[in-house]
Amino acid sequence: MTADAKVSKQQALNDFNAVYPILRDEMLAEVKKYNMPENAYNWFKESMDYNVPGGKLNRGLSVVDTLRILKGSSITEDDLFKARILGWAVEWLQAFFLVADDLMDQSVTRRGQPCWFRREGINLVAINDSFLLESCIYIMLKKHFKAESYYVDLLELFHEVSFQTELGQLLDLITAPEDDVDLNRFSPAKHQFIVIFKTAYYSFYLPVAMAMMMAGVKDEAAYNQAREILLPLGEYFQVQDDYLDCYGDPAFIGKIGTDIQDNKCSWLINQALVKVTPEQRKVLDEHYGKRNAESEAKVKEIYKELDLESVYRVYEDQSHKHISSLIEQVDESKGVKRQVFYEFMNKIYKRTK
Amino acid sequence: MTADAKVSKQQALNDFNAVYPILRDEMLAEVKKYNMPENAYNWFKESMDYNVPGGKLNRGLSVVDTLRILKGSSITEDDLFKARILGWAVEWLQAFFLVADDLMDQSVTRRGQPCWFRREGINLVAINDSFLLESCIYIMLKKHFKAESYYVDLLELFHEVSFQTELGQLLDLITAPEDDVDLNRFSPAKHQFIVIFKTAYYSFYLPVAMAMMMAGVKDEAAYNQAREILLPLGEYFQVQDDYLDCYGDPAFIGKIGTDIQDNKCSWLINQALVKVTPEQRKVLDEHYGKRNAESEAKVKEIYKELDLESVYRVYEDQSHKHISSLIEQVDESKGVKRQVFYEFMNKIYKRTK
Repeated sequence: MTADAKVSKQQALNDFNAVYPILRDEMLAEVKKYNMPENAYNWFKESMDYNVPGGKLNRGLSVVDTLRILKGSSITEDDLFKARILGWAVEWLQAFFLVADDLMDQSVTRRGQPCWFRREGINLVAINDSFLLESCIYIMLKKHFKAESYYVDLLELFHEVSFQTELGQLLDLITAPEDDVDLNRFSPAKHQFIVIFKTAYYSFYLPVAMAMMMAGVKDEAAYNQAREILLPLGEYFQVQDDYLDCYGDPAFIGKIGTDIQDNKCSWLINQALVKVTPEQRKVLDEHYGKRNAESEAKVKEIYKELDLESVYRVYEDQSHKHISSLIEQVDESKGVKRQVFYEFMNKIYKRTK
Repeated sequence: MTADAKVSKQQALNDFNAVYPILRDEMLAEVKKYNMPENAYNWFKESMDYNVPGGKLNRGLSVVDTLRILKGSSITEDDLFKARILGWAVEWLQAFFLVADDLMDQSVTRRGQPCWFRREGINLVAINDSFLLESCIYIMLKKHFKAESYYVDLLELFHEVSFQTELGQLLDLITAPEDDVDLNRFSPAKHQFIVIFKTAYYSFYLPVAMAMMMAGVKDEAAYNQAREILLPLGEYFQVQDDYLDCYGDPAFIGKIGTDIQDNKCSWLINQALVKVTPEQRKVLDEHYGKRNAESEAKVKEIYKELDLESVYRVYEDQSHKHISSLIEQVDESKGVKRQVFYEFMNKIYKRTK
């Protein structure tokens, strides 16, 4: 049985969402098997329902989208179901990271609701909740993929990408601690490491690599090709995010940027530091990472003097050209298709939110 | 080449310790490969050196001890090296849990030094450090065991045991939060779930199961036999720990017990709650989990009235008989040996610290 490769966005989203309760119930069945007392069973259920669904689901959906492109009209309902499971595995991974990141950053809200750790009676218990969310990934992989030839590859991929994300998070945490501003720690090289490791591997490479495994791609070279395109693409995505935090329209991006006040190791401050005069640098040292609107305005003034908007436009153009040429060079005989990357590009470039 | 199965305890410890720097350097090489900036590289190194070695190493050593018994005189130097790596993998797992547990419990010291999160500039970054310690396990398994027929079994075992430990920790955290005493939440059944899941799986079953995998044991029944003995043994070990916290000689156990003041879901309080009169219960409700010596003394008085020391002696005897009979019933043809369990028993029963 093959499934129509062309479906509406809304239909794709509905089909994807329909798999969440199945997986959630499988996790709960696992706990039930152990005769877990009810208070802990309910806690675990609530933690999943609060933290796993409710995001934009771009990462999860991209596993399905990529598999559709790779398998074309030969895709089956079983393929789609499996791709959705892997998509949810990425969403569970993201939930694991976000629950912990929000606690480490002492964030207030996430996806329009209070961060999980801020709910009554949770606080540091959220650490263990994040561990449990991570463990779910391996339960679902074992349950649904143990018989597949690429099962070990999936396990190793999740291990590797988790490690990479944690390294990115480590560098971010110690380079830009909120309560200790020191712009000497920043550099474009560190910014690049942080965005590639903390975001690009798990958001861009992971979903595509999993779809490639499902499509039967075995050649290491194909994975290297995919990585060489998806990491710069992920990097660009995050630079854009940093840019929009300052220059995006809050009505469009859905939040008011706080990177300057939060002492974030953003692309903008790193570009600024490269271009500043000693006088401008003094202003940045004095005002970056300070929790007040006046300081923030002073920093933005310097950004304006340095014309970071133009620097960004040039970067965006160069990055677009660079990635386009990488995609053109893709050797489709190895098992990947250019279309996979073009779809990602079209979603990302020139977005305003 | 075979290695002498009988070595002194000190020699075994030295040989085990000699493997730590090898593994630590392999983890660092992994990070170096990614061109990780120096500040993060050094942070990661310090986190491993501070948190992984320095424990009693009982869990790690028991992988080696068990393999020696299972393979007898046919054991090779390569077997021993591999068993030590798996032993260190358990120690890394323990470090992952302890770094996080200490933060969740807001503990002060661990192994005679300040808890990792209490060192300057760390605090919540310790969450991500604990993730990295966990990730190391899978790097070492991939590096040293990928070619083995039991590689997938090892991965699944670590996933399963991690999940079980996290479930135990969850129940413990929400049943006995330090700042909200409610003895109605306690019960002997919950205590049993907590100790088996939080401690017994990873401390007792995991090391033996790994040695069995290395020894080529494939029969599921053998693993079930081992589990059926090692979980009650681990349970007894923890009950003993709870008992010694109150009745052990501080000079021998190396610490002053704080379970009563910390509102711990200890075996003693659960036994007390089963036996109390309504009047005694009132005293416990009023004084358990209070941070002062007078309240603690009141609770201990009730324990004395209930003669929990005798209850413990009876439990110890029964547990010893029960486990002995389980060991006698072991079918050695399945691949385990009774001697494995007798060694554990001899180390544990009648210990005073």
